[in-house]
Amino acid sequence: MKKLRFAVLASGRGSNLQAILDACKAGTIHGEVVVVLSDHKDAFALERARRANIPAFWVNPADFSDKAQFEEGLLRIIAEFNVDYIILAGFMRIFSPTFIHGAQVPILNIHPSLLPAFAGLHAQRQAVEYGVRYSGCTVHFLDEGVDTGPIIMQAVVPVYQDDTEDSLAERILREEHRIYPKVLQLLAEGRVSCQGRKVIIAGEEERQ
Amino acid sequence: MKKLRFAVLASGRGSNLQAILDACKAGTIHGEVVVVLSDHKDAFALERARRANIPAFWVNPADFSDKAQFEEGLLRIIAEFNVDYIILAGFMRIFSPTFIHGAQVPILNIHPSLLPAFAGLHAQRQAVEYGVRYSGCTVHFLDEGVDTGPIIMQAVVPVYQDDTEDSLAERILREEHRIYPKVLQLLAEGRVSCQGRKVIIAGEEERQ
Repeated sequence: MKKLRFAVLASGRGSNLQAILDACKAGTIHGEVVVVLSDHKDAFALERARRANIPAFWVNPADFSDKAQFEEGLLRIIAEFNVDYIILAGFMRIFSPTFIHGAQVPILNIHPSLLPAFAGLHAQRQAVEYGVRYSGCTVHFLDEGVDTGPIIMQAVVPVYQDDTEDSLAERILREEHRIYPKVLQLLAEGRVSCQGRKVIIAGEEERQ
Repeated sequence: MKKLRFAVLASGRGSNLQAILDACKAGTIHGEVVVVLSDHKDAFALERARRANIPAFWVNPADFSDKAQFEEGLLRIIAEFNVDYIILAGFMRIFSPTFIHGAQVPILNIHPSLLPAFAGLHAQRQAVEYGVRYSGCTVHFLDEGVDTGPIIMQAVVPVYQDDTEDSLAERILREEHRIYPKVLQLLAEGRVSCQGRKVIIAGEEERQ
């Protein structure tokens, strides 16, 4: 069976990238990260890629005349690597529909809330300020909305009444590192399909 | 210690009312339901109240010239019973700010979703159609918005990929029957306070 090929886009330290790299190396994902791109020169995600001998590209938005050109720049590089999926792992930009259609492969994103609650920026802060008792994270397919795409997997964490944005973010992050690799392995096993906006995981029995 | 006095408003079968009545009778809520009101003549909630020897009133919206008059009609009855809290338990009407301020006591509501996700009608159907992996229920103070008030307690349930609106509603309802009495007992113990829109439960330690 052919290994899946992933492009990972990250703006920051790349801890989700690392979780994915580790799972690929351990064989718990039958796939490999073949290219990493960032919009930030100093993103530690790029350094993690280099340490794993994976091509790493800083794509500088300032080098492009507009967002559309920048997105085309990303896609031009990705196109060289013949990937099966584009994985957003803390990539802090909102893509245009042009990018989504131009990508020609599905794009996955992870968001630090139980969507549809707390879409957009600062999801953990939104959750703490709202006063919810539970939050979590969501892996979903990217669609043209902001954090609105079909949900593949979610994980729940409690929110404690003395939580800060940071303490909640840390608790959620541990779940992100757990479920993002799990989703990529489901894709590698060919078990993920869409029925309208509902995502079906083959072999996932109802458990009561 | 004085028992808390609750007015319960319900439009339907009143299964949450029953859970509250049972807990009051068992002593797990240090309080009592002193009056039950419904906007539906045939609401089984009224019958449950009568069986427990609790005054039960059908307040017919058609007897009033408008919503404000109907709400005043409810408040006039409730005022006779000197209650500490008004408990909405499947009361299928949206109150005006006038009712909320006129009530002079806090109003609690239970909603069958993890608010702020899926506010409004048919929350369970909304959750199934959206394709979330978890939903639940929320007990909150009523404010002037629709299902936007400060959250006191939530419970989480999984959503299975073969769930229907009904199967999910049933799973959530079991949690409703568990957490609504729990919240009323927290109120009876004087442990619930608000800081802005955040609800603080005294003695609830952070558990990691």
